[in-house]
Amino acid sequence: MKVGIIMGSKSDLPVMQDAADICKEFGVDFEITVVSAHRTPDRMFSYAKEAASRGIKVIIAGAGGAAHLPGMVASITTVPVIGVPVKSSNSIDGWDSILSILQMPNGIPVATVALNAAKNAGLLAVQILSTAKPELAKKMQTYKDTLRAKVEETAAEMES
Amino acid sequence: MKVGIIMGSKSDLPVMQDAADICKEFGVDFEITVVSAHRTPDRMFSYAKEAASRGIKVIIAGAGGAAHLPGMVASITTVPVIGVPVKSSNSIDGWDSILSILQMPNGIPVATVALNAAKNAGLLAVQILSTAKPELAKKMQTYKDTLRAKVEETAAEMES
Amino acid sequence: MKVGIIMGSKSDLPVMQDAADICKEFGVDFEITVVSAHRTPDRMFSYAKEAASRGIKVIIAGAGGAAHLPGMVASITTVPVIGVPVKSSNSIDGWDSILSILQMPNGIPVATVALNAAKNAGLLAVQILSTAKPELAKKMQTYKDTLRAKVEETAAEMES
Amino acid sequence: MKVGIIMGSKSDLPVMQDAADICKEFGVDFEITVVSAHRTPDRMFSYAKEAASRGIKVIIAGAGGAAHLPGMVASITTVPVIGVPVKSSNSIDGWDSILSILQMPNGIPVATVALNAAKNAGLLAVQILSTAKPELAKKMQTYKDTLRAKVEETAAEMES
Amino acid sequence: MKVGIIMGSKSDLPVMQDAADICKEFGVDFEITVVSAHRTPDRMFSYAKEAASRGIKVIIAGAGGAAHLPGMVASITTVPVIGVPVKSSNSIDGWDSILSILQMPNGIPVATVALNAAKNAGLLAVQILSTAKPELAKKMQTYKDTLRAKVEETAAEMES
Amino acid sequence: MKVGIIMGSKSDLPVMQDAADICKEFGVDFEITVVSAHRTPDRMFSYAKEAASRGIKVIIAGAGGAAHLPGMVASITTVPVIGVPVKSSNSIDGWDSILSILQMPNGIPVATVALNAAKNAGLLAVQILSTAKPELAKKMQTYKDTLRAKVEETAAEMES
Amino acid sequence: MKVGIIMGSKSDLPVMQDAADICKEFGVDFEITVVSAHRTPDRMFSYAKEAASRGIKVIIAGAGGAAHLPGMVASITTVPVIGVPVKSSNSIDGWDSILSILQMPNGIPVATVALNAAKNAGLLAVQILSTAKPELAKKMQTYKDTLRAKVEETAAEMES
Amino acid sequence: MKVGIIMGSKSDLPVMQDAADICKEFGVDFEITVVSAHRTPDRMFSYAKEAASRGIKVIIAGAGGAAHLPGMVASITTVPVIGVPVKSSNSIDGWDSILSILQMPNGIPVATVALNAAKNAGLLAVQILSTAKPELAKKMQTYKDTLRAKVEETAAEMES
Repeated sequence: MKVGIIMGSKSDLPVMQDAADICKEFGVDFEITVVSAHRTPDRMFSYAKEAASRGIKVIIAGAGGAAHLPGMVASITTVPVIGVPVKSSNSIDGWDSILSILQMPNGIPVATVALNAAKNAGLLAVQILSTAKPELAKKMQTYKDTLRAKVEETAAEMES
Repeated sequence: MKVGIIMGSKSDLPVMQDAADICKEFGVDFEITVVSAHRTPDRMFSYAKEAASRGIKVIIAGAGGAAHLPGMVASITTVPVIGVPVKSSNSIDGWDSILSILQMPNGIPVATVALNAAKNAGLLAVQILSTAKPELAKKMQTYKDTLRAKVEETAAEMES
Repeated sequence: MKVGIIMGSKSDLPVMQDAADICKEFGVDFEITVVSAHRTPDRMFSYAKEAASRGIKVIIAGAGGAAHLPGMVASITTVPVIGVPVKSSNSIDGWDSILSILQMPNGIPVATVALNAAKNAGLLAVQILSTAKPELAKKMQTYKDTLRAKVEETAAEMES
Repeated sequence: MKVGIIMGSKSDLPVMQDAADICKEFGVDFEITVVSAHRTPDRMFSYAKEAASRGIKVIIAGAGGAAHLPGMVASITTVPVIGVPVKSSNSIDGWDSILSILQMPNGIPVATVALNAAKNAGLLAVQILSTAKPELAKKMQTYKDTLRAKVEETAAEMES
Repeated sequence: MKVGIIMGSKSDLPVMQDAADICKEFGVDFEITVVSAHRTPDRMFSYAKEAASRGIKVIIAGAGGAAHLPGMVASITTVPVIGVPVKSSNSIDGWDSILSILQMPNGIPVATVALNAAKNAGLLAVQILSTAKPELAKKMQTYKDTLRAKVEETAAEMES
Repeated sequence: MKVGIIMGSKSDLPVMQDAADICKEFGVDFEITVVSAHRTPDRMFSYAKEAASRGIKVIIAGAGGAAHLPGMVASITTVPVIGVPVKSSNSIDGWDSILSILQMPNGIPVATVALNAAKNAGLLAVQILSTAKPELAKKMQTYKDTLRAKVEETAAEMES
Repeated sequence: MKVGIIMGSKSDLPVMQDAADICKEFGVDFEITVVSAHRTPDRMFSYAKEAASRGIKVIIAGAGGAAHLPGMVASITTVPVIGVPVKSSNSIDGWDSILSILQMPNGIPVATVALNAAKNAGLLAVQILSTAKPELAKKMQTYKDTLRAKVEETAAEMES
Repeated sequence: MKVGIIMGSKSDLPVMQDAADICKEFGVDFEITVVSAHRTPDRMFSYAKEAASRGIKVIIAGAGGAAHLPGMVASITTVPVIGVPVKSSNSIDGWDSILSILQMPNGIPVATVALNAAKNAGLLAVQILSTAKPELAKKMQTYKDTLRAKVEETAAEMES
């Protein structure tokens, strides 16, 4: 029961690392690598075709510009795919990667998160795995409690 | 093991029905109702707070305009939430609902699908449930095979 | 007769402080704190539900990205809510927060001001309070006179 | 204690009528007329200058395209101004009127509502007046209760 | 020496037919079929891998929404690929298909034409083939002369 | 025969100075000052009403954000008005000032130039004045010849 | 002293006719024809080169999509050019023609009016000619008086 | 058999140099110079008219803002034209150059590549020439193999 984190280019790593960090924080097994839809289409095909049999239960795919990686992987596997639009250089403010990932045709969904939001992709992967592993839902509740506590602390400071 | 389908307004039903139809097609238990973040905030809170304990494993939430329903439900529950941006009347070409659902802050993901893509929301819900129920992955493979076969048939016609 | 200034995150404070400064300048009582729709939904509910009874007459709510705070607070209280779209990091040029705040459905208005325009939110709050407190309208006239005088001074310099 | 409803062109009336209807529904005194910033600039100046002394407590101004009416009126009066972006023919999907009304400079706020949302402008005017007239806040609560009840009724039907 | 015309869905045919018509008009050999990147990824791979050896010299690929077909085919073949953004239903005014096709990363170009401009895709294919077949350049000159003559005729009418 | 250059705020001067420089270069009389539609509406009215009688033949008006200055001046005077959209801080990439200036309703034109293009506003003013003063058209031809010569020089260098 | 009205295609005539009608209404001499930058580049060059010597004092050029006609004509002549962005079929909501006409580089201005606003182009041409012919300024004042009177009449009806 | 690389301004050279570098890398003859549609329209005409007879087989044209160079050259020659939208200063995030180049009318195609993607323009030129020179297709395959190998190397590092 593993999360597969892939990205179109090594330059996406500073963004995508957040997904790996969330997996670590929740004790979820993961692997992370580069798979380019455009420069390594065969590798992308193999990756997507073999993912399920290798025990991968969720794929997180990040890419920028005309971002085809999440959608192409989703077209090949039955494993749920989370897409992370990455705001790369020469991107048009991120609109290109957002629309290339989000606007998938009927039949092939990609679970899209916000621009550069690899952290949320990690959290969504944990939520998906919690369907089969209820203890992850409990950890998620604790995570949310921590978020809440931090805001309350900040609020207390600001009000004082 | 149930999918909860909610929408901000009854006028979203023609779009959201597609999610219910996919659940039926895959033999997945579901319920469908109206929950408005803005007109029934208490109902929305109760719905989100009780979803997990009522056996709901995935929530599909559709809304238009300044679409707060998916994100607010996601903020309250640990169950994964799929957001469907609905292109309502007076919407600005759908940009408002897309950005209101997609651009969630770190900590609270919403799995966003394409504009009006309730069908894909249903399919994504099935994929998420397949984490715990492997037979759903098999059905998903069959579904994909059917999509493929239809295209191949069309192609054969066009080529002949 | 108090203005409640809230923001989704402490990182919004450099923007939102302007609203507080206007309140001070006009001698209007105010309180300022952090209330996150997504990380502290219960706190947001309590805040909105109790605002009126605590003497708050106008709420100024600032948030970035998928900005749900102003709209959700407006859905719970009858107090007028002024929304300040904040251009946060990873925002898509501010479009996300503008549309998430502005495009509220019929029944639940939010008085939206320009991107990052917390100063204008403060001034609008003063104008709203002047409905009940006519001396505030006079102060507002003086404020406008000062704006005018400054432009005239600049003009005189440039023309000389 | 009156609401002044103005619009840039008679063609905006089908949209702006909603604001008048809300005033009627809440028993709030109002007047409605055409004031064009571009075709009747003198009339616009007089209207704005005399509004306060004529007992107008809130101005609702609707306009399309390069919509200057709400902002210009706000620059002249101290009365709070609610701006309604109207999606006119030849508008660029409403973006022009939204940005022309919303993006006011520091010092001169306009309380902007959603595209074509004259109903919300009316409700916001009522909320503003409720600062001085608490019974309007009660009516607003009743209004919200009705919205809630209608959604709950629809939900009950859909669930049955 | 053949042009391969492919499209993601049969519903793109009314647009893509224009490319075929241009081929016919210029006496250029072509084939036309449906190849879906998302529903028939294997077919798309085979098509792209075998295109060159089957004598295809230019590929025209049309697709709507998150349009991955042109870019994926370009990633697999060395044959030049012309991309036609198709404005499908549920498209966001065509922005999604334009950006998904145009914004390809360095290394993998797609020659993108205007929204729905399959006619121009056909003409561009003819121009590309004219590199090897100079008589096509002559035909293209004649085509341009005809366009010019038609405008001049219209002008003469309008001026008279 | 004078050009009146006005701007909404002193902060627009670094952009608007270019218009003044062109006037100097072409020996055209001009005056330059600050006139704010929003902070000095009366001054704006007087300026526009008296412009023609003071010998002003063209007005160049620059403003940012919800830029009402060019359109309001155009509504009051019969003198042609050139609008310069200024990309101010907190502008939404300049879209707000462009649309607020460009999208004027039928009856009241503003001659809009590109974002921050005060130089082109100056050149357009010279072209307009050349209608009455043919020697300006000659100077404009010389100006164009210089532009051409510079490009040809650069080209010669690059080609060598 | 003549206005030259040109358009890229006969299909622009229903929009561009408004410019001709304004010329007629103001008793200004004009000619109207089709000149396509893309299909008749030589004709466009001749038209622009000879315009001044043929007595044309202002050129109104309308075009849709990648609208190059106004800018190219402006690059060749010293006569002021007014650009009318036309919302053609397959246009992307008019954004393409607006930006292609408006965003001219330094040195070559085009006086851009609103989308489809050929009427305003006609009025602007009259204003430009009034620089040399003061009686046109008087007619323009009368025109504005009529616009004002119509609004006042409508207002009187609505108020009664 | 030569590629002609042209750009609207010397300031585009840092972007356009990439196209020249690709030509060098593939051993393709090329020339590079400045041709401005707006400042040197005659030069642009001559360049386009003589290109084919001078042995130019593909033209790569880069320009920013209201980018008319690629489209105008395409209107004059029968040689295929590749357009590179350049994100210049005062551009509106590149949208202006993209739409000015991409949205060409039926009859006159421009092969548009991504924003600032002169490298891809160079590669596309090589692909076009490979129609007549099969050895270029082999080199292109080697180029793609190198891209693939680099990604695989990066992947191996990241996985280790």
